[in-house]
Amino acid sequence: MIETPYLLFLGDAPDMLAAKVAIGISDWRPEHAVGQIRLPGCGADLGLQEMTLAEAKEAGARTLVIGVANRGGIISPAWKKVLIEALEMGYDLASGLHNLLRDEGDIVAAAQTHGGTLHDVRVPSVGYPIANGVKRTGKRCLAVGTDCSVGKMYTAMAMERDMRERGIKATFRATGQTGILITGHGVPLDAVIADFMAGAVEYLTPDNDPDHWDMIEGQGSLFHVSYSGVTMALIHGGQPDALILCHEPTRKHMRGLPGYQLPTLQRLRDTALPLARVSNPACVAAGIAVNTQNMDEAAAREYLAQVEAEMDLPATDPYRFGPSKLVDALAAI
Amino acid sequence: MIETPYLLFLGDAPDMLAAKVAIGISDWRPEHAVGQIRLPGCGADLGLQEMTLAEAKEAGARTLVIGVANRGGIISPAWKKVLIEALEMGYDLASGLHNLLRDEGDIVAAAQTHGGTLHDVRVPSVGYPIANGVKRTGKRCLAVGTDCSVGKMYTAMAMERDMRERGIKATFRATGQTGILITGHGVPLDAVIADFMAGAVEYLTPDNDPDHWDMIEGQGSLFHVSYSGVTMALIHGGQPDALILCHEPTRKHMRGLPGYQLPTLQRLRDTALPLARVSNPACVAAGIAVNTQNMDEAAAREYLAQVEAEMDLPATDPYRFGPSKLVDALAAI
Repeated sequence: MIETPYLLFLGDAPDMLAAKVAIGISDWRPEHAVGQIRLPGCGADLGLQEMTLAEAKEAGARTLVIGVANRGGIISPAWKKVLIEALEMGYDLASGLHNLLRDEGDIVAAAQTHGGTLHDVRVPSVGYPIANGVKRTGKRCLAVGTDCSVGKMYTAMAMERDMRERGIKATFRATGQTGILITGHGVPLDAVIADFMAGAVEYLTPDNDPDHWDMIEGQGSLFHVSYSGVTMALIHGGQPDALILCHEPTRKHMRGLPGYQLPTLQRLRDTALPLARVSNPACVAAGIAVNTQNMDEAAAREYLAQVEAEMDLPATDPYRFGPSKLVDALAAI
Repeated sequence: MIETPYLLFLGDAPDMLAAKVAIGISDWRPEHAVGQIRLPGCGADLGLQEMTLAEAKEAGARTLVIGVANRGGIISPAWKKVLIEALEMGYDLASGLHNLLRDEGDIVAAAQTHGGTLHDVRVPSVGYPIANGVKRTGKRCLAVGTDCSVGKMYTAMAMERDMRERGIKATFRATGQTGILITGHGVPLDAVIADFMAGAVEYLTPDNDPDHWDMIEGQGSLFHVSYSGVTMALIHGGQPDALILCHEPTRKHMRGLPGYQLPTLQRLRDTALPLARVSNPACVAAGIAVNTQNMDEAAAREYLAQVEAEMDLPATDPYRFGPSKLVDALAAI
């Protein structure tokens, strides 16, 4: 659990693309971000209030979050000055970089001296159990994709927000580093030891109110040979009551695998649903989220109408047209 | 790669059950075992020549293998005397215990002083790549089960032996600690980090002669919610040309999961085969291995005949009736 609210460190990010994590936090959890702090030459700007470490501390910030990815995941000397000063002032630090805070001697020393906590969210901090498969109370929804990076995190986040606005109990459950930094907790599933993957998902989505929905962030794809094992563990550990099928229709091949074609949405449903019913016989495919960013609006609407007719399920682009169709479908379960 | 041949350390094993690893080695790789060494009170006996460390060294032994599991996986003081003496004499040590050799200060010190290698086969010793899904030369066979512990390792080992006797090129590929100690190499798949599971299987089963078969040791089951992610990674990383379906017909529920029933062999085939064809479109279900240890011989034969008729595939208990039917099926591919 990372303590909120955050001060978002943008460092010397050359552009907004490099500030993906910080953008995610200010988009999805604006109440967690008291402000931003930048180094000279920084080309990213979230439009948040510019603050010194002292000003943000005064405004209640508890954790300095490295909201930026730089080439090679390095923690540069220019950053270190700010990070160590933050520790000296009583901040915790949180990072999703490949290079770990805990491997930097001077940062570790400052954290120890001043009692700060270092959160390297790429690395599991919990000894997860072996999954026991026992049915849990509450409801769970899992986004599964025809491929990696088709909008599974965005879909679950957007649905959670819409559900909360409607007064439906819902919690986004992060399974990757960006989601963990946005929400302050979660499981970095791709870094968990194989035997404990499904148990980590059970741990992440415990017993809850009967009318509460865990909106579980998906990972990988059953059809992506590099990561399908992680997806499988999410399906069985998550015990989903509902699957949202995610797709990007213009992609030429599976991400990073030129020799592999994407499956159809029908094939995704017919593969994922029987597997999901092993751990939850009541699971249904509730709806479809299409990433239409590479289509004009008319083409996107036509594609969605066609998919709805073919699949007999509500279909939307949750980014472009909102997730409400999908939330309607969950509310009816 | 663990250097062979071995001297098998049986310690103070109370009975043969505790010596499972040593039995596996002397059954499947008798040429790797120059002898056995026991402590006073040892209740296990492999029938190998009883040797001192010095005698076995003289006979060519390179590695002292801890061939026994004791309660809690502890490395006891009584054992340590022998292990450290072995290091002093130039042996390597190999162990599949939960408690690692590398965590015992005195053993590490002796290994460093005398240049010995410590093999803790539960822990990966390689930085495995992310799977790339590129088609590899050579053929691969994977055993998949309706449940865990239905005889997948035994089936692959027995088939490999039969294939070699027939002059068919075949290599058992170990994915668990017992298999690794038996053959001297492999991947402890359940201890690999999630993102690298399929890549570890690709690493284990590289390009080979077109007529060479990798006989890959299966793990878990697609229907065992605790471990299905590991199975999925084997199916996609292994690119199998042939699946052997493994089953134990008298089991009342999935191992360790009282709420879960075993699937039928039909359901296993219909689930595993389409998934396997994602990475290898030519994959077929080649045959069925049934563990009939809880059935009398007449019942076993009747069951196998019935399964053959229902599934239209050769079926045998490779332990009881030999694996030749399954090898015939592979040879026809």
